[in-house]
Amino acid sequence: MIRVSIIGATGYTGGELLRYLIRHPEVTLTHLTSESYAGQPIHQLHKFLKGRSGLICEKLNVSAIEKDSDVVFLGLPHGTAAKTAAQFLGKGVKVIDLSADFRIRDRRVYQRWYGKHAAPALVKEAVYGLPERYRIQIRNARLVANPGCYATASILAGLPLVAEGLLGRGPIIVDAKSGVSGAGRKVEAVYLYSELDESMQAYALKGHRHQPEIWQEWIRAEGRGTRDENKPRRSSLVTRNSFIFVPQLAPMNRGILANLYAPLKKKMTAEALREIYLTYYMREPFVSILGTYESPEVKAVTYTNLCQIGVSVSSSGREAIIIAALDNLVKGASGQAIQNMNLMFDLDETTGLL
Amino acid sequence: MIRVSIIGATGYTGGELLRYLIRHPEVTLTHLTSESYAGQPIHQLHKFLKGRSGLICEKLNVSAIEKDSDVVFLGLPHGTAAKTAAQFLGKGVKVIDLSADFRIRDRRVYQRWYGKHAAPALVKEAVYGLPERYRIQIRNARLVANPGCYATASILAGLPLVAEGLLGRGPIIVDAKSGVSGAGRKVEAVYLYSELDESMQAYALKGHRHQPEIWQEWIRAEGRGTRDENKPRRSSLVTRNSFIFVPQLAPMNRGILANLYAPLKKKMTAEALREIYLTYYMREPFVSILGTYESPEVKAVTYTNLCQIGVSVSSSGREAIIIAALDNLVKGASGQAIQNMNLMFDLDETTGLL
Amino acid sequence: MIRVSIIGATGYTGGELLRYLIRHPEVTLTHLTSESYAGQPIHQLHKFLKGRSGLICEKLNVSAIEKDSDVVFLGLPHGTAAKTAAQFLGKGVKVIDLSADFRIRDRRVYQRWYGKHAAPALVKEAVYGLPERYRIQIRNARLVANPGCYATASILAGLPLVAEGLLGRGPIIVDAKSGVSGAGRKVEAVYLYSELDESMQAYALKGHRHQPEIWQEWIRAEGRGTRDENKPRRSSLVTRNSFIFVPQLAPMNRGILANLYAPLKKKMTAEALREIYLTYYMREPFVSILGTYESPEVKAVTYTNLCQIGVSVSSSGREAIIIAALDNLVKGASGQAIQNMNLMFDLDETTGLL
Amino acid sequence: MIRVSIIGATGYTGGELLRYLIRHPEVTLTHLTSESYAGQPIHQLHKFLKGRSGLICEKLNVSAIEKDSDVVFLGLPHGTAAKTAAQFLGKGVKVIDLSADFRIRDRRVYQRWYGKHAAPALVKEAVYGLPERYRIQIRNARLVANPGCYATASILAGLPLVAEGLLGRGPIIVDAKSGVSGAGRKVEAVYLYSELDESMQAYALKGHRHQPEIWQEWIRAEGRGTRDENKPRRSSLVTRNSFIFVPQLAPMNRGILANLYAPLKKKMTAEALREIYLTYYMREPFVSILGTYESPEVKAVTYTNLCQIGVSVSSSGREAIIIAALDNLVKGASGQAIQNMNLMFDLDETTGLL
Repeated sequence: MIRVSIIGATGYTGGELLRYLIRHPEVTLTHLTSESYAGQPIHQLHKFLKGRSGLICEKLNVSAIEKDSDVVFLGLPHGTAAKTAAQFLGKGVKVIDLSADFRIRDRRVYQRWYGKHAAPALVKEAVYGLPERYRIQIRNARLVANPGCYATASILAGLPLVAEGLLGRGPIIVDAKSGVSGAGRKVEAVYLYSELDESMQAYALKGHRHQPEIWQEWIRAEGRGTRDENKPRRSSLVTRNSFIFVPQLAPMNRGILANLYAPLKKKMTAEALREIYLTYYMREPFVSILGTYESPEVKAVTYTNLCQIGVSVSSSGREAIIIAALDNLVKGASGQAIQNMNLMFDLDETTGLL
Repeated sequence: MIRVSIIGATGYTGGELLRYLIRHPEVTLTHLTSESYAGQPIHQLHKFLKGRSGLICEKLNVSAIEKDSDVVFLGLPHGTAAKTAAQFLGKGVKVIDLSADFRIRDRRVYQRWYGKHAAPALVKEAVYGLPERYRIQIRNARLVANPGCYATASILAGLPLVAEGLLGRGPIIVDAKSGVSGAGRKVEAVYLYSELDESMQAYALKGHRHQPEIWQEWIRAEGRGTRDENKPRRSSLVTRNSFIFVPQLAPMNRGILANLYAPLKKKMTAEALREIYLTYYMREPFVSILGTYESPEVKAVTYTNLCQIGVSVSSSGREAIIIAALDNLVKGASGQAIQNMNLMFDLDETTGLL
Repeated sequence: MIRVSIIGATGYTGGELLRYLIRHPEVTLTHLTSESYAGQPIHQLHKFLKGRSGLICEKLNVSAIEKDSDVVFLGLPHGTAAKTAAQFLGKGVKVIDLSADFRIRDRRVYQRWYGKHAAPALVKEAVYGLPERYRIQIRNARLVANPGCYATASILAGLPLVAEGLLGRGPIIVDAKSGVSGAGRKVEAVYLYSELDESMQAYALKGHRHQPEIWQEWIRAEGRGTRDENKPRRSSLVTRNSFIFVPQLAPMNRGILANLYAPLKKKMTAEALREIYLTYYMREPFVSILGTYESPEVKAVTYTNLCQIGVSVSSSGREAIIIAALDNLVKGASGQAIQNMNLMFDLDETTGLL
Repeated sequence: MIRVSIIGATGYTGGELLRYLIRHPEVTLTHLTSESYAGQPIHQLHKFLKGRSGLICEKLNVSAIEKDSDVVFLGLPHGTAAKTAAQFLGKGVKVIDLSADFRIRDRRVYQRWYGKHAAPALVKEAVYGLPERYRIQIRNARLVANPGCYATASILAGLPLVAEGLLGRGPIIVDAKSGVSGAGRKVEAVYLYSELDESMQAYALKGHRHQPEIWQEWIRAEGRGTRDENKPRRSSLVTRNSFIFVPQLAPMNRGILANLYAPLKKKMTAEALREIYLTYYMREPFVSILGTYESPEVKAVTYTNLCQIGVSVSSSGREAIIIAALDNLVKGASGQAIQNMNLMFDLDETTGLL
């Protein structure tokens, strides 16, 4: 049994980790921490756990926790996460970090969006926890940077285009709609029920934190479908494309629908493009390619670790229209984190996730 | 008092017409028709009318209705609407048609999307009922083709760009999200509560009926900001742009959020672009331009006849990001129809709509 | 024109007052106050006012405001409201108070639920602003205590039963469901979208503040259908009935559905009971009685000042089942406040509310 | 492995059965039937199964299916279910019927609500599939009548009161709110998104089909806490109580909140009453008793097989206020059906349900 602790267990991603981990056949939960709710039973914060878990929140105490933890999931704010990760790694405990602290490889980019990094020495070692891209590296990782929710949907939607070198010149646009739980359990006026119900609006129109994360991963994937992974090359994305990302809150609890619009290098049919997606994701247990001109439905993927992708082209055949749907709390956060844990501990990747 | 009849009064647009017309100070309602519910009091179909209106639905009988109607609103299916419009016009009754029958000026285009036209001789006379474009023509019209809901939002979002000649080469993309009432009162499995609640998906990925309507109106508006309205010219839109329109149902009752992405001819700041929008819509009572990088909220425009527009540009300044919001049942249908009626009868355009 | 100021204009009831007052034909808005948002245009807080109102929030300054106000609406917290009411009344300005400060006539009861009263001398003078009960007194009032939202629905549901002496021995139960805006714009974790969406729960199971208000008004109405209004009598309610009130938040923005269950003195048919309701509310412009065994729909009354009531009895005919629906922000708050203003200024009661 | 077939697999309860059965460790799915969608892959009807199940819907053919089925779940309309159950039982296949056909033991009562019974000889043998009451009988059953969703919530809320003889004289009232999926996948105007969103209303005010089912089970449970199960006795419920059941659709997908109000024989504290509930349900894996005056939240039980119950009393201590929440598709239908299957096949009752 893997001994697992959750550091910062009271948010929505913490709750979703617990939903999966309490029934995971290879996991024993040893510690749950919360600075605000230390001493309270976890089922008072996640009420579906009533009668399911007797665990009590405790304050974070690294030396107490490391003793009986093989891995910790960090559900901490940016900054704090990096520091805590360093402490656990120093004790030989593996870390899956759900914050953004180890997602961005370029320190100046990180700093622009999140401020000064608290453990810069670890950034290089961290593996970006998208199994569809870094499965082998994750298997051997001590520190996994679990991707953002918008980022997972957008990257997966665009990966075959960039990896197979299909993009023409022009902007890549992602118009993404997220359920409100994507914002976390923040108590702010903008997240009140009466503000969001029966409404939609875009936000972060000057730029969103997931944008550099998506861009970075596309650049790292460029040409990887057809070329040697280790050979460096000039980025066509940087020289020929730009990236527009527009996030929106939709009046639903969970789920992301991300529409990607991108110029194609040459005219294609939807069928031909779909074939490429099918091949690219052929062995992936959690990615499904739908029929051409079919859109995924958010409802088909919520409460699952699936990402469903629909492949279409514009009437001229000159632009790809790729639509990806996933559950922001599962494949977009906690489910993917457990998928990463399964890989790190040599389990079947789907254990506890079906 | 204007004597008004509603032909096909039991759908959602019929209900919304009634919501505004029963309190319109210059209107007397004379007839409401319904083929399925003839004989029933209208308040059984629109329950907010309980105690407000004693009108009974009757079967459509043109010769009975024309005697005491100055204008009829047609809430009929495509095809039937055209035939009925011809009958009322023949009796000297003005017609505001909420169907698509007179929106498309090119008969072949109409036929492709809707089938054979039932009254082709009238198409040329019909005025497209978007007051922001055709105010003068509407004032003198006998037959107004009331615009579609997605079309109103999309056209208004793009008009200043095309009229002022700001577009560069490349695709114009509209990613639009609509409340479910936009689909009308159709009893089909896809519109069941349990299918749509907590979900989103795109549809009509091979093309949507509002697409040719939007494209037509942008072409007609090209260069109109700076040129002689009557002088024909080659369409830059047709030669240099294409149009991608992706509609989506969002889990809300009313409202449209339409995001338009378009290439700019030259780099611009959001401030400069916003100035152009402000000037273009300066005198419009029902269009509001928000601050730069601000998104309209659906909730701010539902139950109003307003269209709010936010103006942004991409980080490179090379693409415009225009977001428009309106209520699909009001500015996107019934409110706009009443705005048109006010113009046709020389009333203040805003009468009964504030 | 009546010069109207709104003291505390930035909450949901403030917004709803503005929605109706900006189009009220007999009203000029002179001041809007807000302690937190002084200096900001009101349309930034109520975005539907963009382009509709140029008014700026100002800090409360009684001597500045009283000069050009005939009446003030108070949207202030309990306690503060009473103090402010006293100041305006002292200057000869009429007051319609949307807080609970003047609703409870028994000072000890008030104190139990809200704390020490800040202006006890005024309690006796205040008129409870339910026009269906106190129309004449409201016409002559300087100070109106606008009823609570649950209270309006519950009192109207039960009034004919108590006024006509129809109740038997046993508990009267009100099981009430409210849209979330009933909780106001409070920024608390329990009102976050992700907590309330797709959920329901009861609250205040030990007692809710609207309970004593409802009970008080039923007691004051006892036997009034058949007797001299001024003749005191022993309360049958107090000796033979008790009152259970269970409020619940439902995942919707607006609206209340209040189900009242009450023992009948003798067996009745739904038809006979409905007749009594019809007669009791015969002249009321904002109360509609539906058919027997029909339930009102929340959607039929939202965005209106209507209360719709359905009358049923249990299969034994021994219990009344009365279901009332209204919009908590309109008939349950701001619409009713305007109805009261109309009465206080000798206007037609429905002015600006249809 | 238990070989399981689902007869009528395309409705919402069919989908929910599949959600649990495809990951049930002791189950092999052998057949799924659908008269309307025979030949279609099941993942086209339940899109979360895309990539999860290759099963194809087939027309019902009892002799083909019985060969490799140990048990069938019937998701058929009332009437058809009874006939099909008889056929499978005749072939030695166990049956779990999700329709109402075998829930009602009194044939005249059944006939009044559902029409003539199609297999009356089997009614006596059928076991009512509420494990909290009939665990032993279910273990030995060939035919289980799976309870209705409202019925499960209401019966569980009231059981300790009737079993322990705590009720006084007077009506027992259940005011129940259900998510829309409780109505099934019926394509009717009343279940359209635009009719139900942002609304609530009561229905079936003259009586609902689950009412006799609840009443029957309470009568069967009377005094069972304290007496010999086999000794017949006069029903106090029938002579001293009556039953009022008011169902309501709430604007959410799943979940039931059922509030039960009942007269107590003698004054009680909430603490004392809660103790009785705790004891009564002490060993139940799927029933949780919350703290006194605490209400369950629908959200805490959706997507689980749990029923959470909150215990309160009125301020006089003379009435019990019991609030139960469950997921209508899980504990109220498919989850409970699987719980029954586990019992029938000697598995741990919670297998595949946690």
